[in-house]
Amino acid sequence: MRKLKDIKPLELKDDVLYVINQLKLPHELVWEKLETLADYEKAIKDMIVRGAPLIGIVGAYGFYTGIKEGIDYIQVYERLKQTRPTAVNLFWALDRMKSIYEKYGNDLNLLLKEAKRIEVEDYHANRSIGGYGEVLIPKKANILTHCNTGALATAGWGTALGIIRSAYENDKDITVYVDETRPYLQGSRLTAWELLQEGIPHYIITDSSAGFLMKKGMIDVIVVGADRITLNGDVANKIGTYSLSILAKHHNIPFYVAAPSSSFDFNLESGDEIPIEERNEDEVKNCHCCKVAPQESKAINYSFDITPAENITAIITEKGIIEKPNKEKILKFFGRKLS
Amino acid sequence: MRKLKDIKPLELKDDVLYVINQLKLPHELVWEKLETLADYEKAIKDMIVRGAPLIGIVGAYGFYTGIKEGIDYIQVYERLKQTRPTAVNLFWALDRMKSIYEKYGNDLNLLLKEAKRIEVEDYHANRSIGGYGEVLIPKKANILTHCNTGALATAGWGTALGIIRSAYENDKDITVYVDETRPYLQGSRLTAWELLQEGIPHYIITDSSAGFLMKKGMIDVIVVGADRITLNGDVANKIGTYSLSILAKHHNIPFYVAAPSSSFDFNLESGDEIPIEERNEDEVKNCHCCKVAPQESKAINYSFDITPAENITAIITEKGIIEKPNKEKILKFFGRKLS
Repeated sequence: MRKLKDIKPLELKDDVLYVINQLKLPHELVWEKLETLADYEKAIKDMIVRGAPLIGIVGAYGFYTGIKEGIDYIQVYERLKQTRPTAVNLFWALDRMKSIYEKYGNDLNLLLKEAKRIEVEDYHANRSIGGYGEVLIPKKANILTHCNTGALATAGWGTALGIIRSAYENDKDITVYVDETRPYLQGSRLTAWELLQEGIPHYIITDSSAGFLMKKGMIDVIVVGADRITLNGDVANKIGTYSLSILAKHHNIPFYVAAPSSSFDFNLESGDEIPIEERNEDEVKNCHCCKVAPQESKAINYSFDITPAENITAIITEKGIIEKPNKEKILKFFGRKLS
Repeated sequence: MRKLKDIKPLELKDDVLYVINQLKLPHELVWEKLETLADYEKAIKDMIVRGAPLIGIVGAYGFYTGIKEGIDYIQVYERLKQTRPTAVNLFWALDRMKSIYEKYGNDLNLLLKEAKRIEVEDYHANRSIGGYGEVLIPKKANILTHCNTGALATAGWGTALGIIRSAYENDKDITVYVDETRPYLQGSRLTAWELLQEGIPHYIITDSSAGFLMKKGMIDVIVVGADRITLNGDVANKIGTYSLSILAKHHNIPFYVAAPSSSFDFNLESGDEIPIEERNEDEVKNCHCCKVAPQESKAINYSFDITPAENITAIITEKGIIEKPNKEKILKFFGRKLS
């Protein structure tokens, strides 16, 4: 069994949260101090922190901080809720914090404990997702992944990248093909950085190369994360995931989605109901630090897309695996009745 | 009928070729002077000029220049041939120049005339491709294109983008969705720049968005160029074309390839035989002017991929349209016998 490093994207010190500034990776490892509710809002909006589970955790600490500042809890809740629209983990975490507040009132200790609990639970959920998922990875495998679903997107270890970590930890002979993931380049900047820390063999590819690599037989399995999963098994995830799912189907390659239970939104029947964040077009007209398009041109910048359940081989959660997901299986899996 | 500008990527002045430095667009319009064979080699290798037809034209002028310098013609031929491996137009143009040399000897006038003829023929071929192709574009259409196949890739007007120009010239109500086309960003840097000059409405998108836009019904038709077409109708084109063709098929969207006859390679039976240029991984680990990945990570940088004929609705040439291309139809179209 290989020994892996434990990368953590956040650290609580003397009641203040420090987070890795993910805009500065891979060039610089800079920790930002989040001291006020406004700091938290900015960190999530500007993508200093990103990744559905991490946004939820940071949102929880942000709730605690807002209350500590003496801001009305409804305002704290609403302000944080508006920072990013697509990932459900943020709303889920904020709801947990809000219900503690509504139950026990202005008890800062309890609120901080709840935020910490959300963080610790996420880490353990990821180790569990890794355990369930790595069983699906062949002894020798070329794995394609998209965006960053690693330690940096979570409390640590990661979801889809957590499965890759677990496969590597279990001595599997893997090579990871990392979609660079434009426009924000979470793949080339963050996933590659994580894989380098762990010594896991990998190649960065442009997003549009993935199909050709599949055709050439260079990809055995695909694992991606999720920002929100609806009742019927549709998955909102980083833009480009949908195309990968169609290409995977065409080439008969298993397509796995890894996510904690907190990514499921039981209020939505299907992916059509998920609001898709459209970010500023400047993210497309720029690449990291430089302009790459005429500034007079327009651009479209959907941050996420919807992958229909029928394209998904299985969803891997911390509670187990849902094969060929659909509403019935998902409700049964979570022990709910069909409505 | 709308009036369009005539963008030219090259100009012969006093026996010396000036070319637009396509590395500097869209930020600066810089003309480079090509005076020696070495200048030509560098211009093609470093992608100061690019686009299959333009590479052929510049190669022809390079051949003339090499002979003028007194370099042995076989050496001139071989040196230029080695600059880029995938586009067949370069070899085709060099073969034309070589055969003039072999027939008429060291006649600089004749060689220059032949190079000019290759240039002029290409321009007219493009206008003709535009004419045949624009008929296939609905009166109101959202058109997706990949890479740059415009004036900058040719002697002027363009192939796939030439069809878009011709549709716009013919008063069609079109909107162009421009794949940015990583890693070299020919879409966001060059195609968007051309469309801006012409005032044609357009949006730049990241390459991985294309599938989601198709799913949302935002794309009516796809037109792309070709670097080489084999006897069976397989097409080598910019990396990402293959994925688009699969996505187009899945969404039932017409997928057109536009190319002059000089892009056909009758020596090759199928796309499997086309050598795929693998360029330096630094192009992936950088984006335009900045580093976007850990420099210790490896990257894969296939410049082209192969789209099988079965994914192509039609190939549009200056001589007409080949629907659902296959070997029999292509041979018949070009008046050759089945071997």
